[in-house]
Amino acid sequence: MKKLGILGGGQLGRMLLQEAANYPVDTWVMENDAECPAAHLCHHFILGDIRDFDAVYAFGKKVDALTIEIENVNIEALEKLEAEGTSVFPNTKALKIIKNKILQKGFYTENEIPTAGFKIIQSKTELKAMADFLPAVQKLATGGYDGRGVLMINKKEDLDNGFDEASILEKMIPVQKELALIVAISQQGEPAVFPPVEMIFDPVLNLLDYQLCPADLPEKTLWKAEAIALSVARNLKSPGLFAVELLVDKDGNVFVNETAPRVHNSGHHTIEAHFSSQFDMLLRVILGYPLGNTDAILPSIMLNVVGEKGFRGDVVFEGLEEVLQIDNAFVHLYGKKETRGGRKMGHVTVISKDKQDLLLQAKKIKQLLKIKGTGKD
Amino acid sequence: MKKLGILGGGQLGRMLLQEAANYPVDTWVMENDAECPAAHLCHHFILGDIRDFDAVYAFGKKVDALTIEIENVNIEALEKLEAEGTSVFPNTKALKIIKNKILQKGFYTENEIPTAGFKIIQSKTELKAMADFLPAVQKLATGGYDGRGVLMINKKEDLDNGFDEASILEKMIPVQKELALIVAISQQGEPAVFPPVEMIFDPVLNLLDYQLCPADLPEKTLWKAEAIALSVARNLKSPGLFAVELLVDKDGNVFVNETAPRVHNSGHHTIEAHFSSQFDMLLRVILGYPLGNTDAILPSIMLNVVGEKGFRGDVVFEGLEEVLQIDNAFVHLYGKKETRGGRKMGHVTVISKDKQDLLLQAKKIKQLLKIKGTGKD
Repeated sequence: MKKLGILGGGQLGRMLLQEAANYPVDTWVMENDAECPAAHLCHHFILGDIRDFDAVYAFGKKVDALTIEIENVNIEALEKLEAEGTSVFPNTKALKIIKNKILQKGFYTENEIPTAGFKIIQSKTELKAMADFLPAVQKLATGGYDGRGVLMINKKEDLDNGFDEASILEKMIPVQKELALIVAISQQGEPAVFPPVEMIFDPVLNLLDYQLCPADLPEKTLWKAEAIALSVARNLKSPGLFAVELLVDKDGNVFVNETAPRVHNSGHHTIEAHFSSQFDMLLRVILGYPLGNTDAILPSIMLNVVGEKGFRGDVVFEGLEEVLQIDNAFVHLYGKKETRGGRKMGHVTVISKDKQDLLLQAKKIKQLLKIKGTGKD
Repeated sequence: MKKLGILGGGQLGRMLLQEAANYPVDTWVMENDAECPAAHLCHHFILGDIRDFDAVYAFGKKVDALTIEIENVNIEALEKLEAEGTSVFPNTKALKIIKNKILQKGFYTENEIPTAGFKIIQSKTELKAMADFLPAVQKLATGGYDGRGVLMINKKEDLDNGFDEASILEKMIPVQKELALIVAISQQGEPAVFPPVEMIFDPVLNLLDYQLCPADLPEKTLWKAEAIALSVARNLKSPGLFAVELLVDKDGNVFVNETAPRVHNSGHHTIEAHFSSQFDMLLRVILGYPLGNTDAILPSIMLNVVGEKGFRGDVVFEGLEEVLQIDNAFVHLYGKKETRGGRKMGHVTVISKDKQDLLLQAKKIKQLLKIKGTGKD
């Protein structure tokens, strides 16, 4: 049996391992928390820091193939392992491009992939000269994650609060829609494209509420989105699975926002709603099997279940029983013992032929299901 | 988190654990093989013999609730644990009835549940006096499993080869169809009935080829089947999940063949084809959640993938790539390293609106996918 190592033990690893149990594969996970969501679902769990060269190198030497469930890994160790014959999904060349936002933007430009105009910034002094480029978004070249390392700079005065570090300053696009498309690339370079999902945001708080699949798009916009996502994945020249986040402006122009070189939050609905899930698909890529069928069995909506603001400590569920009674809802809880405000604790997918039913059930679930804690923040 | 112990670590345990990762539950497995299919998917694996009183008792003392994935467990230990407050699914009263075929047949009779006529046999001498009752099937009261302990007795001369043990002699029913229905009973006694599956046999070898869901039945026969399965599960007076195997004769009469008090081979299709799978459903029962939705998302067919006769040793797959290319097929391989003739190594489920497509794909998969071994038998 092939030995597959996963760097990172969060919910993405957990769901990957749930699917891995359908195939003959020996699974290894490294994470520096023995109680992480993926720790108990693998054949071999190794306690270790995925950012540490020695830990990653030693771990990689135990397996035939490696993949990641978070970008924040020691890339030098992966490069050495790759040079010594371990397969890495995605390969380190692709991972390096994506890990650094300056390189990532340069990659889009080089490959003529539409993306928001940008300036490379090395210091606050350089930033302050950019008053004419506003409104814009400053993004740190490295280390940004889940909203951290990103700053809106709307007017000249905001420049003073900007990052004094290597970063990009990106022109603000008047966004009509946010989409995400997952593309798999086999070891032979063959692609498979999942249908796009559409992000539906709370109009007041601007928080992601739901992900609807398929996205409601004019055919031409859909074609552009697919072409761009495919171009991103192909030009990275790496087998693996890529989640491409796209922005559609008021005129129907489509731009890449950013790319994740791994299974992704925007693909959770594929577990129940598609013939091959994103997790199944990545395993097929790694194990050298034929790519799966990306078609939807039914349209779907997915919402993340996050810890309520103001709570922390041991998890207390509110409304779980009511949600478990919804006929077409699939509940995934990640088994995290402790909650904190905004922490991803699970997700729920609803499938239905009827889009109105999807929206209705998602709204109901969002209102019903709360993750609180025994402690207060 | 509730601590759930599973006695037995085969593929049923494996699939139960794949689903358990959707809920907050601490999972424990006991099996006397550290490389069994379920060993690596639980939080805590205990090496031990599920037929041994001390092993089962010690294991049960570590958890809040126990379930089984095979009937062949030490029931005395379970009785002591239950008396001391551990929840057992199914309860030991139900398990005792089902484990002994004499008690099981008595239970059907007492509760006016239609079943083939039978005689209780204690010895070969008693058996030999049964010439007038033929053709019949002799089944050992205890210890029969997967076809073992069952003997066709067609004519008087066959009586000489019968078992000299406590057993039942069951009138042969002229079978038109074999069905299976899964029924869940919640801790509050509330039932949920899955649609019936129909067993499709190879007409030459009389081997189970496929399971089709829903079964193709006249409405009246369907109603009878549902009523009987429900009656079996309710009268067992135990929370849990029950797979009721039924026979339909040429006149449309329905009889219980036997009942399994656990997740069952006849429910594998529910993983992809139904809103709540049999595994999800059992977890809901045990965790005290509302029962799931038994409805089919799409009709389905399931076929077991068994080791080819004549081979043993390390697994060699034949035709796997071709099967993985079928657009509406879901492949489950149980990760068993060694094959032998007839060993259950995996299953494949196909979903489709179109029954002809289901039958066609199943036939194709059966022809394509072979599990051979590095050694010969």
